[in-house]
Amino acid sequence: MSRLSLNQATIKYADLATALTVTREAGIASIGLWREPVAEVGLRQAVALVADSGLRVSSLCRGGFFTASDPTLRARALDENRRAIEETAALAEAGAPGSSPVLVLVAGGLPEGDRDLAGARARAADAVGELAADAAGAGVVLAVEPMNPIYAADRGVISTLGQALDVVEELPAAVAGVAVDTFHVWWDPALQQQIARAAGRIATYQVCDWITPFPGDALLSRGMMGEGHIDFAGITAMVEKTGYTGDIEVEIFNQEIWNSDPAAVAERTAKAFAATVGL
Amino acid sequence: MSRLSLNQATIKYADLATALTVTREAGIASIGLWREPVAEVGLRQAVALVADSGLRVSSLCRGGFFTASDPTLRARALDENRRAIEETAALAEAGAPGSSPVLVLVAGGLPEGDRDLAGARARAADAVGELAADAAGAGVVLAVEPMNPIYAADRGVISTLGQALDVVEELPAAVAGVAVDTFHVWWDPALQQQIARAAGRIATYQVCDWITPFPGDALLSRGMMGEGHIDFAGITAMVEKTGYTGDIEVEIFNQEIWNSDPAAVAERTAKAFAATVGL
Repeated sequence: MSRLSLNQATIKYADLATALTVTREAGIASIGLWREPVAEVGLRQAVALVADSGLRVSSLCRGGFFTASDPTLRARALDENRRAIEETAALAEAGAPGSSPVLVLVAGGLPEGDRDLAGARARAADAVGELAADAAGAGVVLAVEPMNPIYAADRGVISTLGQALDVVEELPAAVAGVAVDTFHVWWDPALQQQIARAAGRIATYQVCDWITPFPGDALLSRGMMGEGHIDFAGITAMVEKTGYTGDIEVEIFNQEIWNSDPAAVAERTAKAFAATVGL
Repeated sequence: MSRLSLNQATIKYADLATALTVTREAGIASIGLWREPVAEVGLRQAVALVADSGLRVSSLCRGGFFTASDPTLRARALDENRRAIEETAALAEAGAPGSSPVLVLVAGGLPEGDRDLAGARARAADAVGELAADAAGAGVVLAVEPMNPIYAADRGVISTLGQALDVVEELPAAVAGVAVDTFHVWWDPALQQQIARAAGRIATYQVCDWITPFPGDALLSRGMMGEGHIDFAGITAMVEKTGYTGDIEVEIFNQEIWNSDPAAVAERTAKAFAATVGL
């Protein structure tokens, strides 16, 4: 059985029931869930749908966005993350054996008009620490996701895998790991060393391609594996060498893919995964 | 007298004579030149225009693009860089006292269909080494420019200041330095350490802003200082602390700015520079 997991973001317009169905029908055994389609049906119904599907749950996207300097906004963000932690535990529990109670965390960007990147980074690190007890209580792993520097201003101030590891190494491996996404890290000259350093801390491994020319919308600029410039065999070998044996998620934000039939996308994903990652 | 230099790319549609005139008339004492507008009038005429202008020349953009794996293409790229080195020497010689014989080098991207980023990086480093003797003979400093990771696939495989320093530290400081451009490096968690490490190696310091939402064309995504998210005071202080006393270039690729009257852009640049960098 392949380690491929279809991240729901790849078929963004499918509701949860449809996403589970097309994933299973494409012969994919695992799915990465998102909070919004789960909230659409409610957590209780989502848990039932996941349990019925027979699929593994590889992660829940996403928490984070905790760089606000305003104390009220910050407290609200942490509360939202606590809810996300509970959802992660419930959904992973409902998934087939081999499911992972992993909550992917995107740090968030600079507050409006704020140019203190170091300050925002420190607040993000502190927030992960503040959530550690909640994660431990729920048996959930917080997966800090370094984001491509193109998002440093407005989405994710944690820009490299090394930086994400600096944050999570302050906490036990049982509650804090990293999300390694090829789109975000492929360019890093220190990638090989940092992936090696991440041994035992990789909570999820995600793949999609870097395509050129860079599409107009920076948020929708990801490509299907094989259509761009990333060496999936090389990066996957680095990840495997750490002993990572978990699911490998395909997470693609791309308008053309979103506009396609989700069943066709699931099949296309399985083929591209076999041809590039091959696990 | 301000250390501001107007890089010609900011007023891309102005010919060389116009660029020199609007720069001087905006009270800016230095200009960063580009090879294409120089070639338009020919090097001899360009040298005469620069000498007549009374302006300093802060750098020539640009050489590089030497990541080809094909030996013929590689030899051609190196020859082109040797011509650029000669042009740099002639134009800096023609400029007012304080001019800098600095050739900015952009590594180039991955060859078509090639996913071996480490290989392309090694070829770029080798090429800088191969050009060192030519640079020394002409009294020119090669300025290796790390480029924002957004360009790693198709334009510049040297992605961080640390990586650029790894390349140039193999060579004497008299022939090899780095170009520090805020747009390319602002996001780097290691920025403070790497700028400190670059002491004595900063061949040119360039400023422009990172704006959001990210514009449609990745190559035209730079903003005027103050319109985006970069902390110019903070980064400039790091650069000053290294002992860098050279010109500070404003280099902005932005369609709206290109479409504006170049004289107005020069004045707007001088004001934005005073308000943000203030040197």
